[in-house]
Amino acid sequence: MTEPLAEHIKPEEEISAERFSEVSLDSLGEWKRSHHCGELGAEHIGEDVILMGWVQRRRDHGGLIFVDLRDREGITQVVFDPQHSREAHERAHSLRNEYVIAVKGTVRRRPEGMENPKLKTGEIEVLVHDLKILNASRTPPFLVEDRVQVGENVRLQYRYIDLRRPSMMRNLRTRHEALQITRNFFSERGFIEVETPVLTKSTPEGARDYLVPSRIYPGRFYALPQSPQLFKQLLMVSGFDRYFQIVKCFRDEDLRADRQPEFTQLDLEMSFISEADIYAIIEEWLYTLFKKIAGVELQIPFRKMTYEDAMNKYGTDRPDLRYDLEIIDVTDIVSASDFQVFRQAISSGGRVCVLKYPGGVKFSRKELDDFIAFVQRLGAKGMAWIKIQPDQWQSPIAKFLDEGVRAALTERLNLGEGDIIFFMADRRDVAFPVMGEFRTHLAEKEGLAEKGSYEFVWITHFPLLEWSAEEKRFVSVHHPFTAPVEEELHLLEESPERVHSRAYDLVLNGIEIGGGSIRIHRRDVQERVFRVLGIGDDEAREKFGFLLEALQYGAPPHGGIAFGFDRLLMLMVGASSIRDVIAFPKTQKATCLLTGAPSEPDVQQLLELHIRVEVEKEKTGNLS
Amino acid sequence: MTEPLAEHIKPEEEISAERFSEVSLDSLGEWKRSHHCGELGAEHIGEDVILMGWVQRRRDHGGLIFVDLRDREGITQVVFDPQHSREAHERAHSLRNEYVIAVKGTVRRRPEGMENPKLKTGEIEVLVHDLKILNASRTPPFLVEDRVQVGENVRLQYRYIDLRRPSMMRNLRTRHEALQITRNFFSERGFIEVETPVLTKSTPEGARDYLVPSRIYPGRFYALPQSPQLFKQLLMVSGFDRYFQIVKCFRDEDLRADRQPEFTQLDLEMSFISEADIYAIIEEWLYTLFKKIAGVELQIPFRKMTYEDAMNKYGTDRPDLRYDLEIIDVTDIVSASDFQVFRQAISSGGRVCVLKYPGGVKFSRKELDDFIAFVQRLGAKGMAWIKIQPDQWQSPIAKFLDEGVRAALTERLNLGEGDIIFFMADRRDVAFPVMGEFRTHLAEKEGLAEKGSYEFVWITHFPLLEWSAEEKRFVSVHHPFTAPVEEELHLLEESPERVHSRAYDLVLNGIEIGGGSIRIHRRDVQERVFRVLGIGDDEAREKFGFLLEALQYGAPPHGGIAFGFDRLLMLMVGASSIRDVIAFPKTQKATCLLTGAPSEPDVQQLLELHIRVEVEKEKTGNLS
Repeated sequence: MTEPLAEHIKPEEEISAERFSEVSLDSLGEWKRSHHCGELGAEHIGEDVILMGWVQRRRDHGGLIFVDLRDREGITQVVFDPQHSREAHERAHSLRNEYVIAVKGTVRRRPEGMENPKLKTGEIEVLVHDLKILNASRTPPFLVEDRVQVGENVRLQYRYIDLRRPSMMRNLRTRHEALQITRNFFSERGFIEVETPVLTKSTPEGARDYLVPSRIYPGRFYALPQSPQLFKQLLMVSGFDRYFQIVKCFRDEDLRADRQPEFTQLDLEMSFISEADIYAIIEEWLYTLFKKIAGVELQIPFRKMTYEDAMNKYGTDRPDLRYDLEIIDVTDIVSASDFQVFRQAISSGGRVCVLKYPGGVKFSRKELDDFIAFVQRLGAKGMAWIKIQPDQWQSPIAKFLDEGVRAALTERLNLGEGDIIFFMADRRDVAFPVMGEFRTHLAEKEGLAEKGSYEFVWITHFPLLEWSAEEKRFVSVHHPFTAPVEEELHLLEESPERVHSRAYDLVLNGIEIGGGSIRIHRRDVQERVFRVLGIGDDEAREKFGFLLEALQYGAPPHGGIAFGFDRLLMLMVGASSIRDVIAFPKTQKATCLLTGAPSEPDVQQLLELHIRVEVEKEKTGNLS
Repeated sequence: MTEPLAEHIKPEEEISAERFSEVSLDSLGEWKRSHHCGELGAEHIGEDVILMGWVQRRRDHGGLIFVDLRDREGITQVVFDPQHSREAHERAHSLRNEYVIAVKGTVRRRPEGMENPKLKTGEIEVLVHDLKILNASRTPPFLVEDRVQVGENVRLQYRYIDLRRPSMMRNLRTRHEALQITRNFFSERGFIEVETPVLTKSTPEGARDYLVPSRIYPGRFYALPQSPQLFKQLLMVSGFDRYFQIVKCFRDEDLRADRQPEFTQLDLEMSFISEADIYAIIEEWLYTLFKKIAGVELQIPFRKMTYEDAMNKYGTDRPDLRYDLEIIDVTDIVSASDFQVFRQAISSGGRVCVLKYPGGVKFSRKELDDFIAFVQRLGAKGMAWIKIQPDQWQSPIAKFLDEGVRAALTERLNLGEGDIIFFMADRRDVAFPVMGEFRTHLAEKEGLAEKGSYEFVWITHFPLLEWSAEEKRFVSVHHPFTAPVEEELHLLEESPERVHSRAYDLVLNGIEIGGGSIRIHRRDVQERVFRVLGIGDDEAREKFGFLLEALQYGAPPHGGIAFGFDRLLMLMVGASSIRDVIAFPKTQKATCLLTGAPSEPDVQQLLELHIRVEVEKEKTGNLS
């Protein structure tokens, strides 16, 4: 028997019949709902209606019983009056929160002064003739209200109650709309939705695969797709021309805040196109989506920035452009200074870069120390600062900077009174990225990002490859099917690090929401890339034989892109976690608190799958 | 290294550079396609165009080179004329079938008498100024034509070529349309699309689960869903009211002709409804779908038939109603006959049933013997027949039937000259089902089903439970969440076999395409059903605790249905296999001939998953 994954799952809890014995439940019988609870208004006054829904709240007042009846469309006040129906009024006494009921009644105007202008149905109420109690409810573990404060684990365990809360219901309805808008958008533009396999072969995207043992072939496994990458390329070889799919993908990774083991991706691919065609269709799609979903008119086309520019100006290939704060290289200026830290960094090939923050003189010593601690946690040795005060440059390092250096800094950084500047001196691959993280940190602390602003930027001209010190070989910055820039192809074998790719990422408010590339469509080029990656001919044939083969039966030039749909949704609705836009998400430890997955299978199941669990692995290390 | 699954997969095959060294390939550069190949007509004459696609065919004629250029939209004839562009003409000599090219040229009218009225573009051709060869192609393993005769395994291995064939491209484009029509249909009617998890807990639908080992929790496994059954019920508990999803489901079963390990399902659920609401929405959906996809106006509402009627008249709960041929019980009539076989069957509680086929006197002795062999293979002891000839009843058993029996049979069966009647005498649960199979067999042989006719029937009033001799307990005919008919609920414990369910199946032309039910929404009823199924309280809590819990927090009355989308598509497009409406299907042995899945993982992967393969199981049986 499977034990609970966490203590707050209580499969053994005694579930009492509390509240169920009190009432006798009715069946729906011939009753047919006439309206939703968000639908009735003054125009329905006098009509007989049948409503069904949940008891949001019951109040007894002046001999009457008032119930706020809720369904997904809204709330209607229904009234039980003993003068009108003694029996219904009698039974209404047993109603509690979250009971499911059906009422027959007549719509009438609320008494003067009792209208509720906040409710769409606030002008009316329903005087009940007849009541059916369709189900009772125990007292829910938390109230069905947005403002409820309850731990996320409890919300996930009782997800079916959590989803009743208006914000969750709204998020998932928005998700539904976004799905339909997206599919219709691409469908109308000649994209064909094709479903690719879930039980498939490992596609090497760098992450760990989820495996599925085969019962029929002992020792063989399917892999769940990390993306339909190779299938969509094959569809281009087939001549589909424009493909899209909104598809579940899977990565067995240690989960960070905004990752899920299974996630939803908008995936598309086009033939006979170049980067500009991808940019154009995606910009139009996002324009449409944001307009319809968020009511925002995006500025298109989006900005474009090369990878190199992004790294130099923002220390990251995912710059948040809702605020300026550019990082500026001042190595040449400070190389003449007397400050030992700068000189040492520079003499060992490092750089000195600066972030200027206007108004930053306000920071206390404590705040500045916290900043320094922050960058040190990220691997920087330290961070110097200078406050540009009216009368002086206030800083522990001011004394090392002579007039010439000050003048040069003032000019390059356009310094003015009230500014603070932060210096970092380190290896290039430390100084810029850490300064980039500090930039984000500062912006968050200062609330620089305007709420409701959406700053998109295409990052382009990535390196094709990067050296992996761990693996001691070049690895793909994106994936091995990304096309190199044609004019640099001749450098592939001799100077692989100098070759750029035809990849592009789309970044929104500092978060990568999509990425793709023009693909390699020629077998000879694909084989050369495999070789540079250290993938031998045998391995290539074993892993990618079907792709290499497909490339020699008439593969057209093609490219595509994929978007993390969950994350995009989260940004659009302003949720703080992707779990708030997923109906049944997993925890950060990849468990489902609702169902208890993953769980222990029957022995018989494992026997049939020809596998055996080796729980002692960590202890014995003996698995050969 | 993974060995090939079947001999026709040749990962070791030397893939030569044949045809690739002959030509130097161009890149797309700044060229931008102006039209598709199916788009140009007389109205474009005189325009400069850029087309891109595949060489369907090259013909050299009168010093010119003609190429049929193909893309997914059609074919355009392009002409290389040395007088017009020597260079393009020169390079066109190297073109072979399936080469990928781009041409710049001018649309002109074809010379008189050269028009091709079969082609949409048949009035025009494109005189080429400039040619880019974007990719070469080896000679494909089969021609890109519908009429090509090649084994399915070769088609699956080279699926990317197979999908170029017009019928396959058409099937998948139809699938795309059906997907969009379906989603828009339900979306417009207030259904909310919600994505349910793929990595989840086993839902007991009777079939075997695919399992996914958890890396984080040794010994625990996720299961791939056989259907989102419990999640959609929980969504109803959440108040979603109307849910739908087109979703991949998984069953690890031994595959029959029209099964795939992963299949696509239209899944929906509604709250506060009864059976009639499901019938109505589904009929409207199918009406819309068949009209738009197949151009057929279905007759709605569909027929309805109880399970009992279907079994009695057709020997199956999936009757094909494209032809009549009802099975008729004649036990009472023949019980008086002298025929020992009838008497024995009847005296041991069996039945005698008859199928009448008008015109069946034509069958030869050989054909009749084949019929008998057919039913014997299905478990019947035999089958008697009588030909109603003008002057006599011709039959080996005629002598056993006296005038009284003949008269009674003539009346009940409405016999006439030329009819043949077949008798089966056996236990009820043999005679009727086998006669039902024979009915289908006969109809197929005789071509009784009109092509392009669609006969739908709802089968209703199923038994809730059936006795499993194997498991020695009652099992659900549908699944344990199916609601019993309320008026029979009191029989549940005493006479479980007498309780009917509120399930319904939709049958099209003898094939079950959808099924569903009104669900149990009360915890007490659900617990009673579990108990009758022999699922103890502990087991119920362990497996379905979250559902039982959800039922006591305000579960509304609800019900739903699910459709096998692949099979429905197959029937709509008239394909002979579901593999012809799936882009990348698996074989009947659950392998993917294209990618080679399932394959052997790295040892490291299994180590991380805490599992070990036990290939020797069958030999040693030792796995404890």
